[in-house]
Amino acid sequence: MPGEFSGEFKSWLRKFPHRYAVTSGENLKDLKQVAGHFQKLSKLASELSPKTMTVVAVGGGSVGDFAGFFASVFKRGVRLVHVPSTWLAAVDSSHGGKTALNISGVKNQIGTFYPADKVLLVRSLLMGQPEIRVKDAMGELAKIALIDGGPWVRRLKRNSLVGSDLLWNFLKPAIQAKMKIVDQDPREKTGIRQVLNLGHTVGHVFETAYGWPHGQAVSQGLFFALEYSVADGALKSRDALEIYDLLEKKFSLAREWPHRPLSARRFSDLLLQDKKRSNGNQITFIFLSRIGKPMRRSVTVSNILREARRQGVVAK
Amino acid sequence: MPGEFSGEFKSWLRKFPHRYAVTSGENLKDLKQVAGHFQKLSKLASELSPKTMTVVAVGGGSVGDFAGFFASVFKRGVRLVHVPSTWLAAVDSSHGGKTALNISGVKNQIGTFYPADKVLLVRSLLMGQPEIRVKDAMGELAKIALIDGGPWVRRLKRNSLVGSDLLWNFLKPAIQAKMKIVDQDPREKTGIRQVLNLGHTVGHVFETAYGWPHGQAVSQGLFFALEYSVADGALKSRDALEIYDLLEKKFSLAREWPHRPLSARRFSDLLLQDKKRSNGNQITFIFLSRIGKPMRRSVTVSNILREARRQGVVAK
Repeated sequence: MPGEFSGEFKSWLRKFPHRYAVTSGENLKDLKQVAGHFQKLSKLASELSPKTMTVVAVGGGSVGDFAGFFASVFKRGVRLVHVPSTWLAAVDSSHGGKTALNISGVKNQIGTFYPADKVLLVRSLLMGQPEIRVKDAMGELAKIALIDGGPWVRRLKRNSLVGSDLLWNFLKPAIQAKMKIVDQDPREKTGIRQVLNLGHTVGHVFETAYGWPHGQAVSQGLFFALEYSVADGALKSRDALEIYDLLEKKFSLAREWPHRPLSARRFSDLLLQDKKRSNGNQITFIFLSRIGKPMRRSVTVSNILREARRQGVVAK
Repeated sequence: MPGEFSGEFKSWLRKFPHRYAVTSGENLKDLKQVAGHFQKLSKLASELSPKTMTVVAVGGGSVGDFAGFFASVFKRGVRLVHVPSTWLAAVDSSHGGKTALNISGVKNQIGTFYPADKVLLVRSLLMGQPEIRVKDAMGELAKIALIDGGPWVRRLKRNSLVGSDLLWNFLKPAIQAKMKIVDQDPREKTGIRQVLNLGHTVGHVFETAYGWPHGQAVSQGLFFALEYSVADGALKSRDALEIYDLLEKKFSLAREWPHRPLSARRFSDLLLQDKKRSNGNQITFIFLSRIGKPMRRSVTVSNILREARRQGVVAK
């Protein structure tokens, strides 16, 4: 009964002495908008002591990125609590400490590493989300399951849950799996954390080129990465088929290639915009050799481009 | 021969593939200006890999604060090198990792802890500074000498150097003394780092109220803190006289109280704006009980106000 819980949640929100409403979306993260927001926020916080104040960010990914960034730099850092209101934020973006702002439409050019002191997962809030939001999160849940492959993934395969029930029941082990990797490389220094980028390299290209929601873009980027892993010889075709079956049955994910392939130029430009690229024309691409075995490998842009042509993502 | 060296330094600067000039001063640190600068800077950096790029900040305190902040958040952090061009930045602000921006004229409301990978101290650059800049830095050099009181302070007392020669020769031990404290509390969590605030609590009030340069404001704040320490019984009058003698002879610092005392209201407002205050009306004030023995103590605003009246800083 989301309505009922939603009222309860609203009255919880009203208990906070200072509230600041924003409109979610990438526009919120635009650096040009930020000065105005920060001015108002700092006025709101002017009577509070930075030692004891807490920023509580209630919202989806964009709100978390924005509020997390604010908390990380206001008075050089104040307490931060995330209350993700979307499944995508609950399963992925509110964990791991990345905050982000955009510059002139280029995503996440500015940011900090600033883990929240607490992340509150509110069942009623998440269960009240429309079904389309469930789909948004499935790509990230599938991604972390494929990367980790621990006992929880076997439990996930065996049971009959789907949709929001699947998400809620596997939120905890999925987050733990992500944090196991983040904790080994919290500030992305050693490269270990890059495995979480599985599906994202080409996913980000889709996101910008087609304006797809992040979740959808990542799911499709995941299919690209799996196909690439097969073509590369890293992943056996038989294992790939099993994975595709899992993606379809448990996560309701299917390959939906864009109708309009990209030009080679556009594809490479977007690839190189991705901030995680290594030197020059080399890109660290995450392959999968089997469930639980991601592999980082440096490949050239022309190599990915050839594969993108083969997969029909780039015009031949 | 500063002219000659300045030419040499200029040609060193010309070797950098990407340069970006800014006008120094507090205006540079205004959050409203920052979006425009960051847009241009990110365009300049668009062809560079964040893994290998380095921001080299050449300038005084405001340039270091601004460029340090940019380096700390661009692509979630890139390499940073400081080349302080003022004595004040060389002795203090380029060390310890604090970056800062202002919101609506309120100083350092936004910032990060982001130590530079290297700080290059260029003798010719510093020695070429006009004498007024030397005076700016003396307050901070005196402050760290009073806080640390190590063997280098005895060497400093004994020798006959003054002005820029004194600064250059004691730059290294002064920085080491600061870093010994910073390393114990790099993100100002335990409070140990607060001792570096000696002279700054009231110094910041002077800085805003009278528009004094930071260096001058800190020197006068130091005199305030010493007088307060005597009044409080923490510092013996005899020891205070010896310190005043040192401040005058070695650092050319004298007490120059403002002609126009502040109103109690204005003084308290400015005190409470200081971001290092503790809860409510309590402020952590740094006293000195003798050279090398700073003391953190929580005092009420009305307590400081009474002392400010006594010292003639606030109107009676």
